[in-house]
Amino acid sequence: MPTVEEFINSQAEQFEEELCELLRIPSISTDPAYRGEMPRAAGWVAQHFTSLGFAAEVIDTPGHPLVYAESPRIEGAPTVLVYGHYDVQPVEPLNLWDSPPFEPTRRDGCLYARGASDDKGQFLTHLFSARAWIAAEGRLPLNLKYLIEGEEEAGSASLLPFLSANLQRLACDCVVISDGAQFAPGQPAITYGLRGIAYFELLLTGPSRDLHSGTFGGSVTNPANALATMLSALVDEKGRIRVPGFYDDVVPLAPRERRQFAQLPFDEKQYLRQIGVSGATGEEGYTVLERRWARPTFDVNGLWSGYQGQGAKTVLPSRAGAKFSFRLVPNQDPAKIAAGVRAMLAGLCPPGITMELVEHHGSPGVLVPLDSPHVQAAARAIEHVFGRAPVYTREGGSIPVVATFHDLLGADTLLIGWGQDDDNTHSPNEKFSLADFHRGIRASARLWEELSRLPTSARL
Amino acid sequence: MPTVEEFINSQAEQFEEELCELLRIPSISTDPAYRGEMPRAAGWVAQHFTSLGFAAEVIDTPGHPLVYAESPRIEGAPTVLVYGHYDVQPVEPLNLWDSPPFEPTRRDGCLYARGASDDKGQFLTHLFSARAWIAAEGRLPLNLKYLIEGEEEAGSASLLPFLSANLQRLACDCVVISDGAQFAPGQPAITYGLRGIAYFELLLTGPSRDLHSGTFGGSVTNPANALATMLSALVDEKGRIRVPGFYDDVVPLAPRERRQFAQLPFDEKQYLRQIGVSGATGEEGYTVLERRWARPTFDVNGLWSGYQGQGAKTVLPSRAGAKFSFRLVPNQDPAKIAAGVRAMLAGLCPPGITMELVEHHGSPGVLVPLDSPHVQAAARAIEHVFGRAPVYTREGGSIPVVATFHDLLGADTLLIGWGQDDDNTHSPNEKFSLADFHRGIRASARLWEELSRLPTSARL
Repeated sequence: MPTVEEFINSQAEQFEEELCELLRIPSISTDPAYRGEMPRAAGWVAQHFTSLGFAAEVIDTPGHPLVYAESPRIEGAPTVLVYGHYDVQPVEPLNLWDSPPFEPTRRDGCLYARGASDDKGQFLTHLFSARAWIAAEGRLPLNLKYLIEGEEEAGSASLLPFLSANLQRLACDCVVISDGAQFAPGQPAITYGLRGIAYFELLLTGPSRDLHSGTFGGSVTNPANALATMLSALVDEKGRIRVPGFYDDVVPLAPRERRQFAQLPFDEKQYLRQIGVSGATGEEGYTVLERRWARPTFDVNGLWSGYQGQGAKTVLPSRAGAKFSFRLVPNQDPAKIAAGVRAMLAGLCPPGITMELVEHHGSPGVLVPLDSPHVQAAARAIEHVFGRAPVYTREGGSIPVVATFHDLLGADTLLIGWGQDDDNTHSPNEKFSLADFHRGIRASARLWEELSRLPTSARL
Repeated sequence: MPTVEEFINSQAEQFEEELCELLRIPSISTDPAYRGEMPRAAGWVAQHFTSLGFAAEVIDTPGHPLVYAESPRIEGAPTVLVYGHYDVQPVEPLNLWDSPPFEPTRRDGCLYARGASDDKGQFLTHLFSARAWIAAEGRLPLNLKYLIEGEEEAGSASLLPFLSANLQRLACDCVVISDGAQFAPGQPAITYGLRGIAYFELLLTGPSRDLHSGTFGGSVTNPANALATMLSALVDEKGRIRVPGFYDDVVPLAPRERRQFAQLPFDEKQYLRQIGVSGATGEEGYTVLERRWARPTFDVNGLWSGYQGQGAKTVLPSRAGAKFSFRLVPNQDPAKIAAGVRAMLAGLCPPGITMELVEHHGSPGVLVPLDSPHVQAAARAIEHVFGRAPVYTREGGSIPVVATFHDLLGADTLLIGWGQDDDNTHSPNEKFSLADFHRGIRASARLWEELSRLPTSARL
């Protein structure tokens, strides 16, 4: 019999091939055109758990289906819940992809495809590690539960009702999520903080039809003018958000965190080169890492109005719209922020304009205690496989479910991303390093061993 | 032999049929996709002048061709230059048209098609009136020259070089243009003032590719945020334009003009209903007519950035763009305005953003003296045919060539629009009243007679 690690090393090609299979399914959750692909992807995932001897099912929801799976019960052993998502981001603009987004392509040691890093390639490491334990040892050292959803990129609307209705079933000692990045190539990280989000769509209507800007201009409020004015009023000239009370509940960065961040080997010049800007910008008084990880933001995500074609058209548009979002930091309440945004925009909306504000999704930020035994177990597993102790970082993105797990299951979440910052997770040419994929599988297998040694909660 | 008026009355159906022929040619000047249609339309126009015995030619330009035609020379008679344009506005959004824009359709006494009122239906009245004179009297009572261009909706780039190179050929006592609206149905107008325009496109680039707004947000200047801030900084909260020096050269409304405007039978409630807004808005201290006719404006004509599809996408966009324009009033210099806009935007452009400003087109506003014999002749012709004296109005739109005619040819322009304000000239469902079309032909025929009695300039 091979060891767990030997089995994993022998299966490298097989694991890659299975990942490619899943990547070929275009499971874009936000676009109704791909609705039929979602059950296909969910079925693929469930079937792979069933083949391990797990109890797995595809659970229908009003949105896209969830996959839930459980390993055969070992009494007295700790229980870990793995969370991931099989849905992916849209792929526009398609012309900027060097290879088609749903035809996985190997280049320079990476696999290029939409979802390679976010999150298909990452959550599968925890499935393949379980397979390795069963193949090498005949059994897992602990209880594993898997919750793989299909609406993470679309606001996870069906997840909360499922969690609320299945608290007993989902009970666990801790949650494991790999849906983010290492600190740098070769420098793994445990992420102990996440930003939240509050995402909106603002639609303004002025005249009932597009008008000639010469004949009518000056006598009608232009919704595109109003949109620019309303959006710009949400921030001041230093980028500080002007929504009343916005900063009231922000947990400030601790001096210890700032020292720790400052010690990280962060190459600002390389970072700026990577994103193609000539100089650093952002909120005054904070470093680049602090701005990305621990300070709230306001970003316009989309804009549209009037004539977008070639040349000039002298139109006074009937409508204008924007998508925009705030990244939130721990202790900011998305509902309170949404109420503040709504009230402020209503006050800013000029005469002659009808405003509609859609709240797309909101989730709070998260901080995980660094001194928990689960975090320390993850650190040991990662150091063993990567040959280097993880650094403790925060992350600018949002994984809404982490706060929910804390609130509903009382469980800490281990955020151990195997990706890299330049994986282009929401851009053209998404990729995942194959070396990271295989290290992730080995670290996951080691994590099951480390966690199996911890006491389990009396609750289970 | 019939009289001129009898001939016109007998040809109503024929004139409508010929107008429909020209309307079926989709001569959209701003869209390169329709480039091949422009020579077709120009050829149609030239051929209709040739068939009257005029010397007519299609003149190639670096853009779209011009049509120039002259009636057989009558020594000692006054000379009138008719200006019009055969190009039309784009038709988007296509789904809002009740009948296809290039299939002319009669409904409720109107002809619906792109270009029906702006300007094919209007300039053809002056061709058909000449045909009536020749058919009824065997000759025209004066010299007519016609200049029909194909780039009016695209900035008239080829017109100025042609005018400058043909000053002798184009010499005239006055210019006649029908490319606007009457004051109201049944209330014709002579327009003695036009607004100018300065039209821009602003393109902002931030990071070299779209980024994940969670991972990167806060550390990168967002070009869509910057666009909103820069555009909104161009106006204050009262809609007053903040470009330095913008109002320096504005000719204020004369007390006599304000009194005259106030006496016009303008129904504000009906106007607001027509454009579908609940209340009047605009610059403080001015009436709706004053704001539309005699005050400068700032209107955003188009906006685009990031994700415009369904649902939410957490993108920090690489680029953002806007089309916007200022309507100018007499004495404001478009070049001076453009320089001010460029300097102001350059000062507003935040770190991390690269700005490109495209100047699409600019033209000054115009005021025509009300007491000229040509204006009085036009008033008599109109009153004869419409049974009602024209009112003297200004117009919010721009006909850039009017200022050019004044500067280069030293000629007054008679602006006698046969259209209506609700003709949807730059919107879906453009239309032209058939009654106005036929009255326009009769009034034009009468105008040739009135103008033929005036002395001609020694210059000719």
